[in-house]
Amino acid sequence: MNPATSVLLTDLYQLTMLQGYHDLGMEDTAVFEFFVRRLRPGRGFLLAAGLEQSLAFLEQLHFTPEELEWLASTRRFSKAFLASLEGLRFTGDVHAMPEGTVFFPNEPILRVTAPIAQAQLVETRLINLLHLQTLIASKAARSVLMAPNRLLVDFGLRRAHGAESGLLAARASYIAGFSGTSAVLAGQQFGIPLYGTMAHSFIQAHDDEALAFEHFAHAQPDNVVLLIDTWDTEAAAHKVVALAPKLTRAGIRIKGVRIDSGDLAEHARRVRTILDAGGLDHVIIFASGDLDEYALRDMLAAGAPVDGFGVGTHLDTSSDLPYLDCVYKLQEYAGRARRKRSEGKATWPGRKQVYRRHDADDRMGGDVVTLETDPQPGEPLLIPVMRGGCRLAPPPALAEVRRHAARSLARLPEPLRRLEEFTYQVEIAPALHELAAQIDQNTLAGTTRLET
Amino acid sequence: MNPATSVLLTDLYQLTMLQGYHDLGMEDTAVFEFFVRRLRPGRGFLLAAGLEQSLAFLEQLHFTPEELEWLASTRRFSKAFLASLEGLRFTGDVHAMPEGTVFFPNEPILRVTAPIAQAQLVETRLINLLHLQTLIASKAARSVLMAPNRLLVDFGLRRAHGAESGLLAARASYIAGFSGTSAVLAGQQFGIPLYGTMAHSFIQAHDDEALAFEHFAHAQPDNVVLLIDTWDTEAAAHKVVALAPKLTRAGIRIKGVRIDSGDLAEHARRVRTILDAGGLDHVIIFASGDLDEYALRDMLAAGAPVDGFGVGTHLDTSSDLPYLDCVYKLQEYAGRARRKRSEGKATWPGRKQVYRRHDADDRMGGDVVTLETDPQPGEPLLIPVMRGGCRLAPPPALAEVRRHAARSLARLPEPLRRLEEFTYQVEIAPALHELAAQIDQNTLAGTTRLET
Repeated sequence: MNPATSVLLTDLYQLTMLQGYHDLGMEDTAVFEFFVRRLRPGRGFLLAAGLEQSLAFLEQLHFTPEELEWLASTRRFSKAFLASLEGLRFTGDVHAMPEGTVFFPNEPILRVTAPIAQAQLVETRLINLLHLQTLIASKAARSVLMAPNRLLVDFGLRRAHGAESGLLAARASYIAGFSGTSAVLAGQQFGIPLYGTMAHSFIQAHDDEALAFEHFAHAQPDNVVLLIDTWDTEAAAHKVVALAPKLTRAGIRIKGVRIDSGDLAEHARRVRTILDAGGLDHVIIFASGDLDEYALRDMLAAGAPVDGFGVGTHLDTSSDLPYLDCVYKLQEYAGRARRKRSEGKATWPGRKQVYRRHDADDRMGGDVVTLETDPQPGEPLLIPVMRGGCRLAPPPALAEVRRHAARSLARLPEPLRRLEEFTYQVEIAPALHELAAQIDQNTLAGTTRLET
Repeated sequence: MNPATSVLLTDLYQLTMLQGYHDLGMEDTAVFEFFVRRLRPGRGFLLAAGLEQSLAFLEQLHFTPEELEWLASTRRFSKAFLASLEGLRFTGDVHAMPEGTVFFPNEPILRVTAPIAQAQLVETRLINLLHLQTLIASKAARSVLMAPNRLLVDFGLRRAHGAESGLLAARASYIAGFSGTSAVLAGQQFGIPLYGTMAHSFIQAHDDEALAFEHFAHAQPDNVVLLIDTWDTEAAAHKVVALAPKLTRAGIRIKGVRIDSGDLAEHARRVRTILDAGGLDHVIIFASGDLDEYALRDMLAAGAPVDGFGVGTHLDTSSDLPYLDCVYKLQEYAGRARRKRSEGKATWPGRKQVYRRHDADDRMGGDVVTLETDPQPGEPLLIPVMRGGCRLAPPPALAEVRRHAARSLARLPEPLRRLEEFTYQVEIAPALHELAAQIDQNTLAGTTRLET
């Protein structure tokens, strides 16, 4: 059983509401939008990701006979309703920001327009997919900005939250600008470059550290990155220097060393000195262990001679912000704009578009969120990607998505690129304020009679 | 492609090390142990979970022809090595703490004894599986302790990190004592009780809130829990009261109301008053929205009349502690104990057992971590669960695991049950200190000649 493709990977209330829509004959078109409500201080921007998996999910949406049989066995649903699910497919339209687009709170990055049952049913999994990859891409972008021109590798699979999280974190971080991942499956599935060195266990299983280095070099002659912190980092660096001539005679070149514990910057400086003195100035230093974007910034600001970083747990769990306050909300039904006004959770109604202006220096200069029917200056960020359940174009190559992300990050206002406190201007257009006010007035009067 | 069952869901370095072990003919038995290194202040205990999925993973471990073909295409590995992977299966032994056992840092909860290639290869996925469910079970237990005798439902699927995370978070929180989950797939896969109400979209898609309530009640007559905070919570509660007699005449009983925004405790008090005055004292109040164990504690301490809680994002992402500092480390190879001494990450060597004493009042009174060959008073917590790659018993029923967890949590020292700062005594036995010192001495002398 693959949980990633089962339609039962949803909340029970989607199915109970669908039973309701079925009984009531509610089949009109609904418009739902996915957006992030707010970001906590210290986080200035987001990077959209997860659209590809979302569209793939919509394309294959269906109930298997076994799933329907099991639903029947719960005795929660009527036979007529379950029969109606047999042929259910996603036949709606999707508008979205391309993956790798920078965005901000209150800006929808995906809009679903479909018969209400379909649009409702997919809520849980769409949030689940968009949330995860957007979360990780947004986190990864911060390391990319803090360590430009360094080798950045996702090492987080082991502490990612489950299989899909590790696989898609590799994808999301690659989109954001990471060089690659240690997760082999991400190489096979997405063609993401793979990186890997050796673990302490390889050293420990040998009686002698230098012998372990030599053995590993012969087993992986094209990828000799030696882990040197198992017992004494500087002593191990000297062993590397001593070993190098012997390996050279065997035609093997040491590519790098990895340091995984202690004061990484200080060890890197000492190890650099040892390697250089030993004629190994071509050997790169790779650091790992409890790293995040701030650790990278501080190490590089201190001039630590580190050429690459393995970023693991903090990346794959987005440890400082392990979730986004993101939702998928009904904005229109049966041709009429809708709004919830729950305390602290009110929504802006209607089908929306986001327009972005760029300054003379090609940096982002401010966004406007408004109704689709209210064009504004600037670039519209939501584009049609699916119509009648079919994609409008084949999925872009991952390399293209990654380039789009790089361009998008390059156009961030400078304070955001430096991860400084900065509030980017996102204007809610007058048209939206007016529509919201009209709906509120009608709702208070007991109805929502507004035609959009 | 199901990432959860692919052997390629691993770190590249496992495969490069395996190439090394293969070339060197290193086939001796290795012993690896999984443990948590440390917990951050404020978190006093852990609840073991994930063993069942770990054993299932080991049982089915294999490379498919397609996976081997793809590995060959990367040109990283020798033909002889790849050929050796064809018949690879897990043939080792596993000792573990049963799921639902309380444990602490430095205590192994799983030990793998197998030829080094097998034991090494499974590191990434074993950590990935044990980490996730232990993380969530440990978080969930805190809500269970803070809200005894309340209905607790996992609502976190949408913001869990991917499909498997949502599915297994439902399982882990159920083990810890939650009543059930909204995740339908967890009902189908694990038989976990399902709970669900309705979303704001159902209300919004109607022109009239009272009509939406009535429609929903008819569609789900056995499960009428009405969401009352879409526009005005107290006004909606009055609508519920007004609707009740009509539903009663149709043979439908309102089971509960759900409040999802605002000051939940204050709304609950007002709504309780309205419902009681309207003769609906049997209608339960269910609260959701940004809840964690502290919110539950505070609401109940303030006497808020809340009968049940939907706990979502904070549970499924373990938001205050989104990862555990957990590792899987080589402790013995070829009959000799091994140790890494990396700064801040040194390990205790050898095959270990954990003994737990209980006080006269049947509360946990202290643990001792020692060598397997050094019996101590108390209950040994690690038991054999797999031998020669085969389980020693069928998986226990989830209900039994849940009962074991309840017993385990009931025996916690009282301060830990109240989530207070408290350091439970975990003694590292003299035998371990001595072994570590001997290994260090031998390592410094350039060898690790110690026989265990």
